[in-house]
Amino acid sequence: MTDTTQGPPHDHATPGESAALAEFREFRERMNTRILGENNLVINRFFNLDGRAYENGTLDVKTKELLGLVASLVLRCDDCITYHIVRCAEEGVTRDAVFETLSIGLVVGGSIVIPHLRRAVDRWDDCERMRAQS
Amino acid sequence: MTDTTQGPPHDHATPGESAALAEFREFRERMNTRILGENNLVINRFFNLDGRAYENGTLDVKTKELLGLVASLVLRCDDCITYHIVRCAEEGVTRDAVFETLSIGLVVGGSIVIPHLRRAVDRWDDCERMRAQS
Amino acid sequence: MTDTTQGPPHDHATPGESAALAEFREFRERMNTRILGENNLVINRFFNLDGRAYENGTLDVKTKELLGLVASLVLRCDDCITYHIVRCAEEGVTRDAVFETLSIGLVVGGSIVIPHLRRAVDRWDDCERMRAQS
Amino acid sequence: MTDTTQGPPHDHATPGESAALAEFREFRERMNTRILGENNLVINRFFNLDGRAYENGTLDVKTKELLGLVASLVLRCDDCITYHIVRCAEEGVTRDAVFETLSIGLVVGGSIVIPHLRRAVDRWDDCERMRAQS
Amino acid sequence: MTDTTQGPPHDHATPGESAALAEFREFRERMNTRILGENNLVINRFFNLDGRAYENGTLDVKTKELLGLVASLVLRCDDCITYHIVRCAEEGVTRDAVFETLSIGLVVGGSIVIPHLRRAVDRWDDCERMRAQS
Amino acid sequence: MTDTTQGPPHDHATPGESAALAEFREFRERMNTRILGENNLVINRFFNLDGRAYENGTLDVKTKELLGLVASLVLRCDDCITYHIVRCAEEGVTRDAVFETLSIGLVVGGSIVIPHLRRAVDRWDDCERMRAQS
Repeated sequence: MTDTTQGPPHDHATPGESAALAEFREFRERMNTRILGENNLVINRFFNLDGRAYENGTLDVKTKELLGLVASLVLRCDDCITYHIVRCAEEGVTRDAVFETLSIGLVVGGSIVIPHLRRAVDRWDDCERMRAQS
Repeated sequence: MTDTTQGPPHDHATPGESAALAEFREFRERMNTRILGENNLVINRFFNLDGRAYENGTLDVKTKELLGLVASLVLRCDDCITYHIVRCAEEGVTRDAVFETLSIGLVVGGSIVIPHLRRAVDRWDDCERMRAQS
Repeated sequence: MTDTTQGPPHDHATPGESAALAEFREFRERMNTRILGENNLVINRFFNLDGRAYENGTLDVKTKELLGLVASLVLRCDDCITYHIVRCAEEGVTRDAVFETLSIGLVVGGSIVIPHLRRAVDRWDDCERMRAQS
Repeated sequence: MTDTTQGPPHDHATPGESAALAEFREFRERMNTRILGENNLVINRFFNLDGRAYENGTLDVKTKELLGLVASLVLRCDDCITYHIVRCAEEGVTRDAVFETLSIGLVVGGSIVIPHLRRAVDRWDDCERMRAQS
Repeated sequence: MTDTTQGPPHDHATPGESAALAEFREFRERMNTRILGENNLVINRFFNLDGRAYENGTLDVKTKELLGLVASLVLRCDDCITYHIVRCAEEGVTRDAVFETLSIGLVVGGSIVIPHLRRAVDRWDDCERMRAQS
Repeated sequence: MTDTTQGPPHDHATPGESAALAEFREFRERMNTRILGENNLVINRFFNLDGRAYENGTLDVKTKELLGLVASLVLRCDDCITYHIVRCAEEGVTRDAVFETLSIGLVVGGSIVIPHLRRAVDRWDDCERMRAQS
């Protein structure tokens, strides 16, 4: 059972990180540590399994992150979207691939998805700006 | 394919606009422009279709906005609720009609809808205050 | 507190009723009677309130049934869709009004709604055939 | 990693079992065996964890099954509801406790839950008839 | 029909109350008063019924609050989660019972629940700090 | 605007097609033709857009079908899952890729997804049997 903050997104502030990304990262790290420290067996195993699901396999990590992104978009979870957007950027997924994935999520999930699409693109642009500065 | 910010809610700050409404409007306009500028065909056609769905037809615009409002309430999307609340106010829907629509959404969607109902009514009151000042 | 089977859809088989509509109606009536007979105060009051929400008010019954229909479509509940489709037909809502309402539900809810849209239209056609035979 | 059919509901047909319960049980057992036999690590660990979550702990098994029931009801999954209804009956949960749990699910989830409530009560009555015959 | 702010969470600021809990409580109280004052019969009866559902019965209040908590978690409503977390703390539910309930919600609802789990635990820790200071 | 039955899954019965796949295909084709024949502009454009979203682009058709599959699984729509399972089989996606995609959907969506996972695998096995017979 891991007692870490569950790896990526990166554990340390990155130059050029937007306020939105920093707030997400810091709260996520702080609360993951807090929750795993409670030592509830079911919760800790679930967190571990969640990490496993996106590891390299028959499908590569990029494809798996896009699967996580589209699932998060149609379920309309902003924090989950942010997580997978950051992971896509870290893995070098192209902007076109991200937008095609978002377009499928929009068609599947409908206009109710649009507010989350706006925030997804805003986070993606944050990631591109970070990369440009590094 | 349109490259505008998709029409209403109004493109310019209105006297008496609450902070919540202004923040919603500005982010919506900025990100719609950003997203449409990416020229993803599927996304842009979807945005266009989303506008079409609420145009005058057999059902008038007021009724269609109430349909959009109740759908947004039971799906619990605050931004979508705000959008249709503003549109209802712009079209001159009465307060009683809005509350009857919200009451149906509450019964269909259950108590999980209540936090969104609170924010919906808060936005409606913002709109009434704006109208009183104009 | 009512101990009836909660009124419409009609309590007795109608000439020309399709197998799908008859099965829905009979199970609904049997189980509503069963559930209300348990005398759980919260459940019985909820059933009563559910009936109240669609009564004539500032909005007429036709509009309220369309609100119930679009909410049921985006939440993807086949039985709820069938109920409101039958009620729309009973109240004399036109086919165009029903399709415009379904089109808004489709845009709001996305392609995930399509299988339910198919069944909604199949039930509407059942209702039109019933009316043609009566 | 287990390769069994994940324990209860019972692995063998019970006297007095309704057609609905038998069909659910048989398909569940057949497909669980099929899926676990694929040896996908993430899926198999998830199935194992799913069993763990309902084991006796600070909260007893009865309470945990009621938690599973209300979660299944508000998420409107008939098979999940059937599973937890059967488990509640097996554990000796009283009818009043089941109906109070269902009443909370109805208020939280709204009228969209009612068709699932009807099927939940029908399954509960199946279980009571089974017990009366055994 | 009540015109109060619907009882607990407490009507007055408590020493040691976190900013998050205070903001939730104040907005909830203000808007409940506002909404109930509109005198929409269906909405007011729903609010009354919502209170009834959690009253002592065959199941005690603690168990009912845990049922409300798990339902709120799988439906991913932060305000509803906060409400039931506060109620659990007020009723003296233990931390272990809360975490076991959260673990069931996590397994039922999946990783999409994790961001809400983080905020749920943060609110629970707020409640424990409040109790330590009182 | 197309007036066809929207292309794949195949328009004609295939040797070895299971009863479940044939029933899905026939109802889908009949109702798509019926709905498109109503000539509701918004609905017809949506159907057209739905087809476009999965066309070859930066992401290939296989990847897009996996995106559609995981989105359908977490949203728990059996017909949508069947559609994308059939499409994956038609495009030659491997069984391992399908199971890895399903495993991500299971972790994201939780145990509530399991009944749909069972039916998804049952449909996949139908497709493999069809291929073995052709």
